[in-house]
Amino acid sequence: MVGDAQATQRRLLEAATQEFAARGIAGARVDRIAAAAKSNKAQIYHYFGSKDQLFDAVFNAMVVETLREVPIDVADLPGYAGRLFDGYQRNPQIARLATWYRLERAGTDAPLEMVVKSNRDKVEAISRAQRSGELPSHFAAADLLALVLALAALWDSATPEFAELTSTYTAARQRRVVTDAVAAVLAR
Amino acid sequence: MVGDAQATQRRLLEAATQEFAARGIAGARVDRIAAAAKSNKAQIYHYFGSKDQLFDAVFNAMVVETLREVPIDVADLPGYAGRLFDGYQRNPQIARLATWYRLERAGTDAPLEMVVKSNRDKVEAISRAQRSGELPSHFAAADLLALVLALAALWDSATPEFAELTSTYTAARQRRVVTDAVAAVLAR
Repeated sequence: MVGDAQATQRRLLEAATQEFAARGIAGARVDRIAAAAKSNKAQIYHYFGSKDQLFDAVFNAMVVETLREVPIDVADLPGYAGRLFDGYQRNPQIARLATWYRLERAGTDAPLEMVVKSNRDKVEAISRAQRSGELPSHFAAADLLALVLALAALWDSATPEFAELTSTYTAARQRRVVTDAVAAVLAR
Repeated sequence: MVGDAQATQRRLLEAATQEFAARGIAGARVDRIAAAAKSNKAQIYHYFGSKDQLFDAVFNAMVVETLREVPIDVADLPGYAGRLFDGYQRNPQIARLATWYRLERAGTDAPLEMVVKSNRDKVEAISRAQRSGELPSHFAAADLLALVLALAALWDSATPEFAELTSTYTAARQRRVVTDAVAAVLAR
């Protein structure tokens, strides 16, 4: 029975990931998630509490998975940005979930501990590499992280009209723009 | 009476800008927009057609205003990015509307002519400056524009948890990171 509960929760998280990525929090329908997961609304509220808390569970799972699959590498920030780009390519829901999160959850609740800790750890790693001379210091550590993350998501932040201009680009070409730009930001 | 109609449409656009920036398209309520504009739903549908079309009218007006206030300056792309940053600071609704637009309108409708034309004109201006040697060519024109626009919006693309790390930053400091990063991307 414990296995059943876990399987249900996993199906609910998967269905919720699809629904939230496509429609955001306001646009998501809990009964659509329940139907897609062969579950029901009562189970969602039982396991997750509310639609907002279900979104937070989805977002937290995504952050944990990204941290595991793409750990920061301060010795190669262009490569790190490239691997983040690869992850966004494999799973376009990541960028969408992060954007909905920013638009719909900012200031409405306590910040997600996992995200706070992950940012602090990355800034600390960059800062250490700057003190040891492994990374240049013309940008502060937090600024450098902000730049790397924004550049990794460069092609996800474009409007559809902009995407038209670069619709013939291969993923490899998009990736090179990302890694070249991070390298340029790091050049002394 | 023509003046009345124009005044009503202007109030509706203003109220719709607030509502869409805060809640997006799915989350926006047409009756809340009508009430805020001292109008009614019938007038909204009469003037704009639908909630989606009202959003497009808001977005188009924002694009037109940004193009007028912050024209591209290929001779000074860091300064252009800085002025875009200033505009986003003055009016945080711009970045939010652009993000909702990307999430909720992509692929659902014909692309907005004004946005397509504005992107093409900017890429063409950068391309001309590259051919004349005024701008470097190590990034293609469309890539350079993508980089400048993403960097100008750098601080708007951060999650609330990231914003915490840089909460002591002045706008002047944030601006300098933007302009320095664009300068780094341009450096040969």
